[in-house]
Amino acid sequence: MKALTVAVLGAGYMGSAITFPLSENGNRVRLWGTWLDDDLLDASKKGFHPKLKKRLPESVRFFYADALKEAVEGADVVFVAVTSEGFIPVFTKYLQACSEPCAVFTLTKGFVELEGRITRISEGALSFFTERFGNRDLQWVSIGGPVKAVELSDRVPTATMFGFSSRELIQLFSCFSTPYYRIYWSEDVQGVELSSALKNVYAIVIGIADGLYRDSSIEYCHNFKAFLFNQAIREMAFLIEKCGGKRETVFDLAGLGDLHATAASGRNGIFGRRIGEGGNPQDIYYEMQRSGEVAEGYSTLKLGRRYIKQNHSALLEKLPLFNVIYRIIFSGHNCRDELNGLVAQFGGNSL
Amino acid sequence: MKALTVAVLGAGYMGSAITFPLSENGNRVRLWGTWLDDDLLDASKKGFHPKLKKRLPESVRFFYADALKEAVEGADVVFVAVTSEGFIPVFTKYLQACSEPCAVFTLTKGFVELEGRITRISEGALSFFTERFGNRDLQWVSIGGPVKAVELSDRVPTATMFGFSSRELIQLFSCFSTPYYRIYWSEDVQGVELSSALKNVYAIVIGIADGLYRDSSIEYCHNFKAFLFNQAIREMAFLIEKCGGKRETVFDLAGLGDLHATAASGRNGIFGRRIGEGGNPQDIYYEMQRSGEVAEGYSTLKLGRRYIKQNHSALLEKLPLFNVIYRIIFSGHNCRDELNGLVAQFGGNSL
Repeated sequence: MKALTVAVLGAGYMGSAITFPLSENGNRVRLWGTWLDDDLLDASKKGFHPKLKKRLPESVRFFYADALKEAVEGADVVFVAVTSEGFIPVFTKYLQACSEPCAVFTLTKGFVELEGRITRISEGALSFFTERFGNRDLQWVSIGGPVKAVELSDRVPTATMFGFSSRELIQLFSCFSTPYYRIYWSEDVQGVELSSALKNVYAIVIGIADGLYRDSSIEYCHNFKAFLFNQAIREMAFLIEKCGGKRETVFDLAGLGDLHATAASGRNGIFGRRIGEGGNPQDIYYEMQRSGEVAEGYSTLKLGRRYIKQNHSALLEKLPLFNVIYRIIFSGHNCRDELNGLVAQFGGNSL
Repeated sequence: MKALTVAVLGAGYMGSAITFPLSENGNRVRLWGTWLDDDLLDASKKGFHPKLKKRLPESVRFFYADALKEAVEGADVVFVAVTSEGFIPVFTKYLQACSEPCAVFTLTKGFVELEGRITRISEGALSFFTERFGNRDLQWVSIGGPVKAVELSDRVPTATMFGFSSRELIQLFSCFSTPYYRIYWSEDVQGVELSSALKNVYAIVIGIADGLYRDSSIEYCHNFKAFLFNQAIREMAFLIEKCGGKRETVFDLAGLGDLHATAASGRNGIFGRRIGEGGNPQDIYYEMQRSGEVAEGYSTLKLGRRYIKQNHSALLEKLPLFNVIYRIIFSGHNCRDELNGLVAQFGGNSL
């Protein structure tokens, strides 16, 4: 296992957390911060990452926004760890900064908009890559699975799913895994990517259920959350298969594993809980965003719906829970009424 | 939708909770308590079920252990809601008490021992049924899915999975469903039954992970729990398919839905958490049992392992997490060492 030079783009939660397994394998890790990350880098250099609330590994080298060229020069691998909104700006800057393409591993989850069309992140990336490097191959890995960044940096046992574009990439994976960071892989890039994106949407509604019951005399709603969890997996499996991915991918780490962790914790779950408690979805979203906590499911819901309408519009009516979440968040519908109405329709043949 | 006469056998958590949707549909509900349930019935008659901590529906009629014949006389349907340990004693008494067989819906989950052989509950039931009624058909439904009893009695939205032996039974299901109790169904009795049993075993280990981290400086282990959840679903799907059930059943309410609720709450999760916190498994199990809280996963693990060895012994080595749970609970192995050792082996091809 040789040591690699790895450039990590984005110094937020996930970018900084991934430096732990990467550097513990002896790789030379460069952490580049976007134009929004100056404070994170300043603090990290002084010995304390404000989001992870700990010191990053000693050997990590820091690069500010204007030093992207230096950060990616000669890198064997790039990890992209920005939000979906930041993906295109960062990825296009990266392409301009690099003279020779290398393998791209992305931790970004969601959809992007390209000249009015909504695409998966890998599709968007390929389009820009081809503009820059013509017919050369984009070596691509979409990373999914239940990986809360803080826990990864705490070395909590963690499993992740790498969806790869080419089998050659498999040899690299052992350079990143550690006893606590276990890597599974699959050729189903599309399934991994769509599962990772959609689970953020469905995590919101499990949070909503929690919020609805939090202040009632009924303490818990595990039945309801498991019901919604199950329906989410049903809808994801249905949709992803229709989009050309594999059902089995949804029934594994990138789907049910990731939804399990995301709904129980994290920003999408919190966003949902506050809606369930009676808050206005837009107010909560922007308030969270101002404090640096982006609930990715919000924009994934908006763009995801356009993605489905654009490519598979007949499928939309087969996704009742997805539609309910959309109406709660973007059409101002009452979440209790919507969910109770939905529940009362469910049941029937599962053959 | 006609009203039915329904006898519920067992007045514990689930037997008493199921009387809510059953009686709200206008059915005539008779709740029979076993020889261990006298106190529960006494209190319920006075207006307060001690486990559900509420009054049962007004129309429910109570029957003590010695009035089994009266309880089942003329019933259209029987619901069995005792523990797996209680199943054979209760079911054989029921068979003796009834003159004419009716459809049996069972909420009991686990395995039973019959003359030294371990069988699924429906197999055991069929054997006794045939002894009593010869070649007549046993109309059977195995009930699975994420249904915490207290929440059901609180009318929290709940979905359940009915695995049926015969299509004729489907017409009965609408007599039991309410706006908050949604019934899905499947012909895969075996898959529903095995999922419902095994999820109690795997819920223990998710509890163990929780317990291991509870007192550490690391507050949460969502990554680890999702990892174990995912591995549990993988092993259940593998095993159940080999046993003649369907993988899709595991990827639905009786499998992933039920494991989701069971691991987050309930007695098996608590049993696991206390092991993770350092307790001795046998001590905890019997202490819980003495206070009337049976962690069903304990005996399901013991009998389940014998069931697998007896019918499919070569499969056992393909169930690494199941084996780890067994060694922790029945061979006194240290749970931290076992789980860390297991995690470090995982990863690889998911195609």
